[in-house]
Amino acid sequence: MNQKAVMHTEWLNKKYFSDGEARIGGQVVMISQDEMQQTFFSVLSHIGITEEKARACAAVFTTNSVDGVYTHGVNRFPVFVQYVQEGLVDKDAEPALNTAMGSLEQWNGNGGPGPLNALAATDRAVHLAQQYGMGCVALANTNHWMRGGYYGWRAAEKGYVLIAWTNTIANMPAWGAIDSRLGNNPLVIAVPYRDEAIVLDMAMSQYSFGAMEQAAAKGEALHMAGGFDKEGNVTHDPAAILASERPMPVGYWKGAGLSLLLDVLAAVLSGGLATYQISQQQKEHSVSQVFVCIDLSRLPQQSTITQIIDGIVNDYHHSQTEGDKTVRYPGEGVLQRRKENLQKGIPVLATVWEQILKLKP
Amino acid sequence: MNQKAVMHTEWLNKKYFSDGEARIGGQVVMISQDEMQQTFFSVLSHIGITEEKARACAAVFTTNSVDGVYTHGVNRFPVFVQYVQEGLVDKDAEPALNTAMGSLEQWNGNGGPGPLNALAATDRAVHLAQQYGMGCVALANTNHWMRGGYYGWRAAEKGYVLIAWTNTIANMPAWGAIDSRLGNNPLVIAVPYRDEAIVLDMAMSQYSFGAMEQAAAKGEALHMAGGFDKEGNVTHDPAAILASERPMPVGYWKGAGLSLLLDVLAAVLSGGLATYQISQQQKEHSVSQVFVCIDLSRLPQQSTITQIIDGIVNDYHHSQTEGDKTVRYPGEGVLQRRKENLQKGIPVLATVWEQILKLKP
Repeated sequence: MNQKAVMHTEWLNKKYFSDGEARIGGQVVMISQDEMQQTFFSVLSHIGITEEKARACAAVFTTNSVDGVYTHGVNRFPVFVQYVQEGLVDKDAEPALNTAMGSLEQWNGNGGPGPLNALAATDRAVHLAQQYGMGCVALANTNHWMRGGYYGWRAAEKGYVLIAWTNTIANMPAWGAIDSRLGNNPLVIAVPYRDEAIVLDMAMSQYSFGAMEQAAAKGEALHMAGGFDKEGNVTHDPAAILASERPMPVGYWKGAGLSLLLDVLAAVLSGGLATYQISQQQKEHSVSQVFVCIDLSRLPQQSTITQIIDGIVNDYHHSQTEGDKTVRYPGEGVLQRRKENLQKGIPVLATVWEQILKLKP
Repeated sequence: MNQKAVMHTEWLNKKYFSDGEARIGGQVVMISQDEMQQTFFSVLSHIGITEEKARACAAVFTTNSVDGVYTHGVNRFPVFVQYVQEGLVDKDAEPALNTAMGSLEQWNGNGGPGPLNALAATDRAVHLAQQYGMGCVALANTNHWMRGGYYGWRAAEKGYVLIAWTNTIANMPAWGAIDSRLGNNPLVIAVPYRDEAIVLDMAMSQYSFGAMEQAAAKGEALHMAGGFDKEGNVTHDPAAILASERPMPVGYWKGAGLSLLLDVLAAVLSGGLATYQISQQQKEHSVSQVFVCIDLSRLPQQSTITQIIDGIVNDYHHSQTEGDKTVRYPGEGVLQRRKENLQKGIPVLATVWEQILKLKP
């Protein structure tokens, strides 16, 4: 490939591998949770993933779709299969402990499936938190975890706080820069709350490429400024940002700084690759991740944690808004979507579902 | 006081107690580091703070000024003295261990001086990290730590990563809301790097009230959108944002979510007050803070950490920019300012310095 072709491949890669919002459009079919889980399990088994792993992996993709994060659920599933088939993801690899340092552990993901490695890291961080009060697993040489929020919900359901992040391929310029040298490095913070959770799952770019493509396809402007055009002007025009490849970090210079620090910590703590090294590859793989877990069951206020959070959420919900808007906490929308999708089925682009059915044996 | 007077007091309080940038303007005098430290020490001793504490407290205010964070250094010093004199800060109180839970500890700041409590919490988190690999101190009932970056630099100088945050009085509306129910809850992430550090110190509001006041006084527009006017339009006009009291969270809805989660974690982990409770007080005191510390000396790559970060920083510095702009990592500007202020003296508003000299015995 010549340089331009390489650039284009990288760009496609970025577009399809780093976005985070729904991209529903076109004709839609409604798929039940069971059918989706069974279909994914069948495909994953067919490509040689062992039963237990296929089941866990299918559950990640299905749950993400149930929760409305289609880009890192059903829409992404064919790409995951392709990565396994291309050998970019080693389906049989398992994470291995590299170094134990008390409540801090360094693990090697050995290039295995990102969702399985992230699940193992989450569960290990929970275990360390049980042992030490808090625990941290830094994971090198792993792959895309799909949706970080999944692991946040998992830890929170067990009663643990999770703070986790991943680095990514470079897909966002530093503040004041033109070329992408920062990853959008999603950060997850999850806190158990009643039988559910408050889960923040935010990438460091203001809008995902997926959301911008969707808006551009509809000819809609972004609600807020989302990046720069080729002349360096701040713009709400998604097409202009896709053309310039200059999405905006959250909070301008602040999110750029946060992205850099998350990358530094991920690379230093795991001993794995940093964003600039991941970006030297043809496609995004071998990323670095950090999972910090805190055990709430030891707190002296353990019995009143729900009341503490109730107080905060209650005040937050009493925010004055213009018109009849409501203010929601992170993850509150997910709960609504989950309920709806479980009742009515998961909306899937017909073309996507056909593609997946073809992967079945 | 009638309701309006209370509102005005709260507003002044927010303005002077929650900003984060330099507010140099008017006639300036140059004060050496030694003179500032001695002056602060003298004033603090005069109001009855014991020698060791007065020295440590003076060092925080002086260092923050040397580093160019005047709003939380010299400009804030008279307010700190006033708080001590009013009894809002208990000068003699010392932090006490509430509950030890392995690598996680809950401390009570007992309403003592914020900088001293934060120093103690940082050092304790370092100690826990030495013992467990990582450590966390959650601190209830403390006071304004002035500049979170100070504790980041302190941990980093000892070779430790620090991730710390504080909640504050409500000074920012939720996304889509009109009234302030979120704090700007500054977050600090510090990583040791060579003999220095990379230190991110970011509040969750895009611009501090101080920065907006300064721009408004000069009749300048904010470089980027910083909030809403009274009609709910996004604006670059600092005066309009000061009038509406609707500053913008970093990354719009994302920073609002992050602010909420940081408050939830601070209140839950410390057992202390949440932002909504702090806001029920006349002035900002009794805040909650979290200090997470990681020991890098145990990492198997310990000898190559500098090279890992060198690689990241080097790539980052090679960002293409428009014109001759340069891209700096968080804290890089602080180093330049520190060097300059140590050489030439610290620029202080003449009116501020006169006010401080009057506090001396």
